[in-house]
Amino acid sequence: VATAYRLGELADRLGGEVRGDTDAAIRGIATLDEAGPDQLSFWTHRRYRVAAENSRAAAILAGRECELAGHNMLLVDRPYAALALLLELYHPSAPPCPSVSPDARVDESAELGRDVQIGPFAVIAEGAALGDRAVVGAGSVIGAGCRVGEDSRLEPRVVLYAGTRVGRRCLIHSGVVLGADGYGFATVDGEHRKVPQVGRVVVEDDVEIGANTTIDRAMLGETRIGAGSKIDDLVMVAHGVRLGPGSLLVAQAGIAGSARLGRGTVLAGQSGVAGHLRIGDGVVVAAKSAVFNDLPDNAFVGGIPAIDQRRWKRTQALLKRLPEMRREIRELRARIDALEGVGDEED
Amino acid sequence: VATAYRLGELADRLGGEVRGDTDAAIRGIATLDEAGPDQLSFWTHRRYRVAAENSRAAAILAGRECELAGHNMLLVDRPYAALALLLELYHPSAPPCPSVSPDARVDESAELGRDVQIGPFAVIAEGAALGDRAVVGAGSVIGAGCRVGEDSRLEPRVVLYAGTRVGRRCLIHSGVVLGADGYGFATVDGEHRKVPQVGRVVVEDDVEIGANTTIDRAMLGETRIGAGSKIDDLVMVAHGVRLGPGSLLVAQAGIAGSARLGRGTVLAGQSGVAGHLRIGDGVVVAAKSAVFNDLPDNAFVGGIPAIDQRRWKRTQALLKRLPEMRREIRELRARIDALEGVGDEED
Amino acid sequence: VATAYRLGELADRLGGEVRGDTDAAIRGIATLDEAGPDQLSFWTHRRYRVAAENSRAAAILAGRECELAGHNMLLVDRPYAALALLLELYHPSAPPCPSVSPDARVDESAELGRDVQIGPFAVIAEGAALGDRAVVGAGSVIGAGCRVGEDSRLEPRVVLYAGTRVGRRCLIHSGVVLGADGYGFATVDGEHRKVPQVGRVVVEDDVEIGANTTIDRAMLGETRIGAGSKIDDLVMVAHGVRLGPGSLLVAQAGIAGSARLGRGTVLAGQSGVAGHLRIGDGVVVAAKSAVFNDLPDNAFVGGIPAIDQRRWKRTQALLKRLPEMRREIRELRARIDALEGVGDEED
Repeated sequence: VATAYRLGELADRLGGEVRGDTDAAIRGIATLDEAGPDQLSFWTHRRYRVAAENSRAAAILAGRECELAGHNMLLVDRPYAALALLLELYHPSAPPCPSVSPDARVDESAELGRDVQIGPFAVIAEGAALGDRAVVGAGSVIGAGCRVGEDSRLEPRVVLYAGTRVGRRCLIHSGVVLGADGYGFATVDGEHRKVPQVGRVVVEDDVEIGANTTIDRAMLGETRIGAGSKIDDLVMVAHGVRLGPGSLLVAQAGIAGSARLGRGTVLAGQSGVAGHLRIGDGVVVAAKSAVFNDLPDNAFVGGIPAIDQRRWKRTQALLKRLPEMRREIRELRARIDALEGVGDEED
Repeated sequence: VATAYRLGELADRLGGEVRGDTDAAIRGIATLDEAGPDQLSFWTHRRYRVAAENSRAAAILAGRECELAGHNMLLVDRPYAALALLLELYHPSAPPCPSVSPDARVDESAELGRDVQIGPFAVIAEGAALGDRAVVGAGSVIGAGCRVGEDSRLEPRVVLYAGTRVGRRCLIHSGVVLGADGYGFATVDGEHRKVPQVGRVVVEDDVEIGANTTIDRAMLGETRIGAGSKIDDLVMVAHGVRLGPGSLLVAQAGIAGSARLGRGTVLAGQSGVAGHLRIGDGVVVAAKSAVFNDLPDNAFVGGIPAIDQRRWKRTQALLKRLPEMRREIRELRARIDALEGVGDEED
Repeated sequence: VATAYRLGELADRLGGEVRGDTDAAIRGIATLDEAGPDQLSFWTHRRYRVAAENSRAAAILAGRECELAGHNMLLVDRPYAALALLLELYHPSAPPCPSVSPDARVDESAELGRDVQIGPFAVIAEGAALGDRAVVGAGSVIGAGCRVGEDSRLEPRVVLYAGTRVGRRCLIHSGVVLGADGYGFATVDGEHRKVPQVGRVVVEDDVEIGANTTIDRAMLGETRIGAGSKIDDLVMVAHGVRLGPGSLLVAQAGIAGSARLGRGTVLAGQSGVAGHLRIGDGVVVAAKSAVFNDLPDNAFVGGIPAIDQRRWKRTQALLKRLPEMRREIRELRARIDALEGVGDEED
């Protein structure tokens, strides 16, 4: 049974404000549709107003500007960040249970920090090192000479090829492959000869990487993921890419070889960036778009090829009117024919 | 050696009709190109008429309306469904061989139904439960408290995060990851703080999920895949998505967080649906398209952003004529210049 | 410590020419930015001229036509191919260490060639056969009756479903799944009935397949990857596809069922090819494009749907001018109105 907190207590913790009953007991958190009369819900996306109005929740967390009659409200400056704190409060992480499974194969030359946790059928190769409290899930494979920092967690079935470095407090989800060979071939007379890929992958601190994402090693030097970046599932980062800190790569996005992206890059879902490009800081690429040119800081682009996002939206709106434009051109031609005909008659 | 059936027997089983020799012996099924004179082939796609005409097959399965001179024909109402039945007849599934590998690690608190099959190096965590005749392939990892229904089959190297529920008669292919954390971060002053993902994934009965597909757990509540849905390889379903029953998600499609899709949704290959959308029943999204708006029942859409599919096709056809349209506008301008010049001379 | 070679020696090995000091000692290879004064770097992409000029490298490898003052230059016909040779010289592959891990489960009916290497927790099922010097990484699963040719290498956590055939000298990266069921369902009254997938996957010699790529088995017959093809990460090849030899499939590309692609096909990143198509030899599909029609030999196409690449680029350039075109049409209309007004006055 989860601990109950009074709504007023929660407001104090979050620096928020209660409209309504500060004594309401909150035993958990649930979505607007599913919350019961002892649960808090949240209204963080404008399209859910009706769901918020109809919610049976004991109280609703929302931004300070929100109005909603007939509900206890917990109003804060940043409702989504507040929600994160509340979820941590009501769903504390399971305590770590450090142990090395007798079914794991840990090379005797590997260095294990204090209180590491290694699951069954994991493999830790020669010269690899795990920081204190690092977790390696069942069936994961840590190649020779890899480094995994303190408090990082690899879920089951992650593969780190030899030489990969993962920083501290990272979370790597199942099926991720870090350090597979970059896609480099020299084509001579139609034959594709492999260019050896002898660089590595470096993942800095506080990075999260989603399920089945792949990040390839550099041909030489590094493929590097900047600190604090968050990568979603099924993303592809090619060899030699440098991704600035604090970046967000949404599901199924891809970055081709040797591209360099600045800090705070946002690639929305299914978007792509071509090889060798230079992308400034703070660039946002819309979903399903493809960047084929360098971009300055703070560019917001969309389309294939990606152009300024507002221009892209305008052209897409006009695109739908192409049939009408075509009809109009025909009408104008007919009218000019007529005018010229009038002229002919005048000759 | 496969059993032989007479063509007439097969017609009886399928409720079909023979044109030609009902006594022809059919020992197997093969493609039009590869079938030999004791095999049946099938003509289910119009573009293969020439291949059908040239086939050496003993007989050809096709729709009732098909005409093909010089071949024994087995004509049925639904040739593709009939083909499925014939493939089951000539290629019966291997009989199950229930057993728990001594190399699997099954927590003593896990509940195993009757006649389950668990491969080597599989891990079944505390409190997980497998229904009767469930199969867990080699190296798969079933997290704490998961449920896998009767007659469901997980191929090798599937991962179910804690709390995932898989219904009955499901087929989950290798590399699938169910229940990894949803992609939720609250950005405060450029720092992306993790929003705990404490919901789960629920896969209803009779679902198939293709290789290396990922379905993330909800932040709260459920990500739910409706009964009878079929999902192809490398598909991404984000946190909190609700997919209606009988849906089809073709390879590399993606659905962003909290979208709700109705029954019988079809997402063709490499298409996408943005977050929080409401998509009605029976909606079809063309390949490579991206849906950015809510859609009513039975919408058929294409393009980026997706619009009515016929309108999209028309605009794409016109797009190719843009150079001509532009030239025409210039010509019209020149003619107007001339007409205005005529006017000038008249002044 | 790596062996040092004189620049002149390297030129001899590559059939190249030195501009500058033939005696310069080269101890390794590094990128233009990172190379130190005892390392060789390479200038193989025109956009890096400034980096080349500023490089501290002892010498720079480049094409014969390149000019760069103040640097020792090693000029060759094919700099990228030469780089491949140099990388092999300075980074020789680790010698194989044949052994079968006692933690692998190898069925007694499996046939193992000489000097094979099998990692811990790998599974080799009944009737499978590995050629001489084949390598099966940790946690990989080789299904019943599979064949893996001589000198092929499967990295950790690869899955080959039963009956899959991999040729000689192939390299299959982690997370690859070969031979999962094709996506075939016969829909009857809204219910999707599985069409048994009883064919196989055949990968010919000298193929490389990137991390987490999936290639599905054929319904009947084969899905076949031609010799010498190179496939990147997260690519999807559907059931019954035939891919010609020497093809390149870049990351996140996809090919739908039964498509046949000629030799030397190039699918750039995130592109797709629809089902049942016939694509000639030497076809190139631009990044993010989708092919919906058959293509003749040597077609170079782009867009969705893909059209001739040059035409596509021209229409994309015009697209950006749609707002101007629309404005122009309005102006022309106004001028025609005026001209017709003039006519009216003349009446």
